[in-house]
Amino acid sequence: MAILNHGDTTAASGTSPAAAAVNVAPPMHSLVQPVLDADEFRRQGRLVVDFIADYYTRIDEYPVRPAVAPGFLARQLPEAAPARPEPGGDALAAALRDVRDLILPGVTHWQSPRHFAHFATTGSNVGALGEALAAGLNINPFTWAASPAATELEVVVTDWLGKALHLPERLLFSGGGGGTLLGTSCEAMLCTLVAARDRKLAEIGEERMGDLVVYCSDQTHFSFRKAARIAGIRRGNCREIPTSRESGFALQPRTLLAAVRADEAAGRVPMFLCATVGTTPTAAVDPLRELCAAVAGRGVWVHVDAAYAGAACVCPEFRGATAGAEAVDSFSTNPHKWLLANMDCCALWVRRPEALTAALGTDHDVILKDPSSERGGGVVDYKDWQVALSRRFRALKLWLVLRCHGVEGLRGLVRADARFEVPVPRQFALVCFRLRAAAAAAVGEKRGRDRDNDAEPNELNRRLLEAVNATGRAYMSSAVVGGIYVLRCAIGNSLTEERHVREAWRVVQEQATAVLAAAACTEERAVRSAR
Amino acid sequence: MAILNHGDTTAASGTSPAAAAVNVAPPMHSLVQPVLDADEFRRQGRLVVDFIADYYTRIDEYPVRPAVAPGFLARQLPEAAPARPEPGGDALAAALRDVRDLILPGVTHWQSPRHFAHFATTGSNVGALGEALAAGLNINPFTWAASPAATELEVVVTDWLGKALHLPERLLFSGGGGGTLLGTSCEAMLCTLVAARDRKLAEIGEERMGDLVVYCSDQTHFSFRKAARIAGIRRGNCREIPTSRESGFALQPRTLLAAVRADEAAGRVPMFLCATVGTTPTAAVDPLRELCAAVAGRGVWVHVDAAYAGAACVCPEFRGATAGAEAVDSFSTNPHKWLLANMDCCALWVRRPEALTAALGTDHDVILKDPSSERGGGVVDYKDWQVALSRRFRALKLWLVLRCHGVEGLRGLVRADARFEVPVPRQFALVCFRLRAAAAAAVGEKRGRDRDNDAEPNELNRRLLEAVNATGRAYMSSAVVGGIYVLRCAIGNSLTEERHVREAWRVVQEQATAVLAAAACTEERAVRSAR
Repeated sequence: MAILNHGDTTAASGTSPAAAAVNVAPPMHSLVQPVLDADEFRRQGRLVVDFIADYYTRIDEYPVRPAVAPGFLARQLPEAAPARPEPGGDALAAALRDVRDLILPGVTHWQSPRHFAHFATTGSNVGALGEALAAGLNINPFTWAASPAATELEVVVTDWLGKALHLPERLLFSGGGGGTLLGTSCEAMLCTLVAARDRKLAEIGEERMGDLVVYCSDQTHFSFRKAARIAGIRRGNCREIPTSRESGFALQPRTLLAAVRADEAAGRVPMFLCATVGTTPTAAVDPLRELCAAVAGRGVWVHVDAAYAGAACVCPEFRGATAGAEAVDSFSTNPHKWLLANMDCCALWVRRPEALTAALGTDHDVILKDPSSERGGGVVDYKDWQVALSRRFRALKLWLVLRCHGVEGLRGLVRADARFEVPVPRQFALVCFRLRAAAAAAVGEKRGRDRDNDAEPNELNRRLLEAVNATGRAYMSSAVVGGIYVLRCAIGNSLTEERHVREAWRVVQEQATAVLAAAACTEERAVRSAR
Repeated sequence: MAILNHGDTTAASGTSPAAAAVNVAPPMHSLVQPVLDADEFRRQGRLVVDFIADYYTRIDEYPVRPAVAPGFLARQLPEAAPARPEPGGDALAAALRDVRDLILPGVTHWQSPRHFAHFATTGSNVGALGEALAAGLNINPFTWAASPAATELEVVVTDWLGKALHLPERLLFSGGGGGTLLGTSCEAMLCTLVAARDRKLAEIGEERMGDLVVYCSDQTHFSFRKAARIAGIRRGNCREIPTSRESGFALQPRTLLAAVRADEAAGRVPMFLCATVGTTPTAAVDPLRELCAAVAGRGVWVHVDAAYAGAACVCPEFRGATAGAEAVDSFSTNPHKWLLANMDCCALWVRRPEALTAALGTDHDVILKDPSSERGGGVVDYKDWQVALSRRFRALKLWLVLRCHGVEGLRGLVRADARFEVPVPRQFALVCFRLRAAAAAAVGEKRGRDRDNDAEPNELNRRLLEAVNATGRAYMSSAVVGGIYVLRCAIGNSLTEERHVREAWRVVQEQATAVLAAAACTEERAVRSAR
């Protein structure tokens, strides 16, 4: 029975694929070397597990930021990939030696207990192994049918996490909303921006695209402005509302409302507000309830970027940070930042999933259509919640983390970080500090500079950060807020202990002494040479 | 020495963070249970490695597509995350038992040798372990400084891969272009679309956004239309140029040019062409050289989506598929599809990286600014090449794959797949087939249907696919091309042997018999009841 339809090009030999496969090369898994092989995986897997464990054992010995110059690695590697695995039979072991000898000395060690830059990416045994397990299963759950259990686990685990963070019920599947796991907060911003944009354009017409305006504060992560540009919002239509030190760099509802009204008066269309819980520069918290109230009734989509600080909401004492979240349209946080889920993992919840799928859905595609999706009835096809079609099984590691540590375990983790108190307005586990203006001015005065000029202390603090980081004993980052350059010490790595914070502080003190002395010395030389 | 600047809120106690940390909870890594611990990682890592190896051993025993109903998993899991890890001391082992008993029976087994749907995601030992290793290191190389070796390895390995695929030199760093590793082809499309859009708008003015037109064929992956929508291209300005069976469903340069000219005549602005090497429905190949020539001199960005078939270019005999790529602006392929790199890994090369970074760059951000980037001079900051800020260390697994298999090993892999010849116009390792129109018509005739009506055979083939997939012994997908519904059998999983293809064919034959018999029976009943 020849049921193959050859179209208009029917060949004489109506054989089957199987018949045609006869008399050809051996099966691919026996070519060259095993590609996917259980026994070999067991052996190679142990090599890699031991390699990672050895790395954790030694991680504190590495300079946290490597002292390498651009091009250092490229120079040590051949110009083309090898034609064949190197002889000797164990290519992986040889490659791991190169990882140890060539690559590790050149990476910045994000899991180092001395890494206080940016925000931590808290790793955990279970997070790393959850990622490994997902890589081993190697499935692509873009629709429910493409892997039912993976999709359903994501539905379950985003609800679990939402409940653990005390999010409003309406953002969870159990309350008519729903969550998904993306790679980063930037993706969450882009997806919700596009959903809001298309909802608004459906109302006012596509030709008014150029009138849409989005709002954030001058403290909002730059990813938002980038996402707005990607979504085609005019460069001039992204309002960065100024904040001030007086209000702790939080977005003020009154200032926001004034900007919204000005845009409306000019015929433009307010469309989206990105509020932040835990800004990147100083972990400031925008007042959600008041901001939502300010734009209520205007059809403005309110998204909350809680990339870093959302995790803190596992602790009841931090719940105030998300007070008023009942009124927001979407909320995202990164379990890879402070909830042990290893890179990458961003949880996004939306109040109306249909707004997301209306903008990002691709139901017309027959290749992916399957009876379960057509039947509807509660089946989630996550491809319609994100930019990409393909996706990893991220729910697995988050589920493992929640299972193996429990919500109480995560509370302990957050509280352990948050105990690092300092006598400055500190938010969560981010400490911002700088050399006093007075100390810098003592240097600047000799040159007769204006004491109010911030340039000099900013420059000194910039030098201080570079000096601290050059020691390799601590790695911090910086921010400029209200024109003031601050060093950012973000505490939160899984391996960080009290002694690492103490030592980091010693490093800061030593380097501050050196930087101030060097500056004074330069001044004296300048004074001498001017004589 | 108190160098902390307390701003205007200087507290009485000028103590350091370290001093403040005294008298508080024990270090976080000793809380509840080890979070990141080398010895425990060694033990837990072995559990996971053995779990994956056991899975590979048993994978052939699972129905490839599970017979589960929506909601099956959610019903079996608690409504909230556990407060504490379950007692007994080994939460991970308990969780792995649940993965085995609850989750694996409900996943679609993408690594099964019986998975012929969509395109394969070829997994390998080294690909999975490379992903595991990256998860263990858990670094975030968004700038060169944020992890120099990770960035440099990505520069090296994208050049290596480009050379292995015989890509034009001008797309590689060594030729003035450059590559990056993203998650998916959808991201590659979106990033290049935004780069092309902003380049064009800089020329003609932002207010002409609504005039921009993008081009693809009716065979182009739906991700392109989605990416264009995300980028703010008007829904009506995405031209899907029709293709036909006569030209093998390839995009015809003449038809494209006619569409471009029509848009120009109407005052619109042609901006982007997405050509495909290996379309999703039938693996058709668009003629790059002729398409580039057709739009030459018009400032149209030509992107090549070679998500699946790009890998075939490791074999010199398949190089024809990318002939003319010298003239394209960008090219992407997914090493996670056919080059053993496990989910997710998309390589994107661009001829002018500055066009990408002009659109996606965020140089103004002081937090990420560091002296190496400011110095310029060959430092790549990959955050400016993609949507997101954060990113995984994907270069590591691709480097391991290239190291451990070698380019010859990958050639062997591609040839092993491509040997599955069938007597239809087959491209690469994708076989499209269907029940003959005649067989369907034999059923339809009794009802007096028009023999030229395609609906009846399409419906029968749809039933055939559902019947094949319901057996759990093979999993295929479908496409509609030129109004004709075809079953797609994509051969390429690492574990697939000849016997799996033979058996899949037996399953198709059995189910075709059953579907035709059932249809005939229904007809007879209809005829009888009409009497």
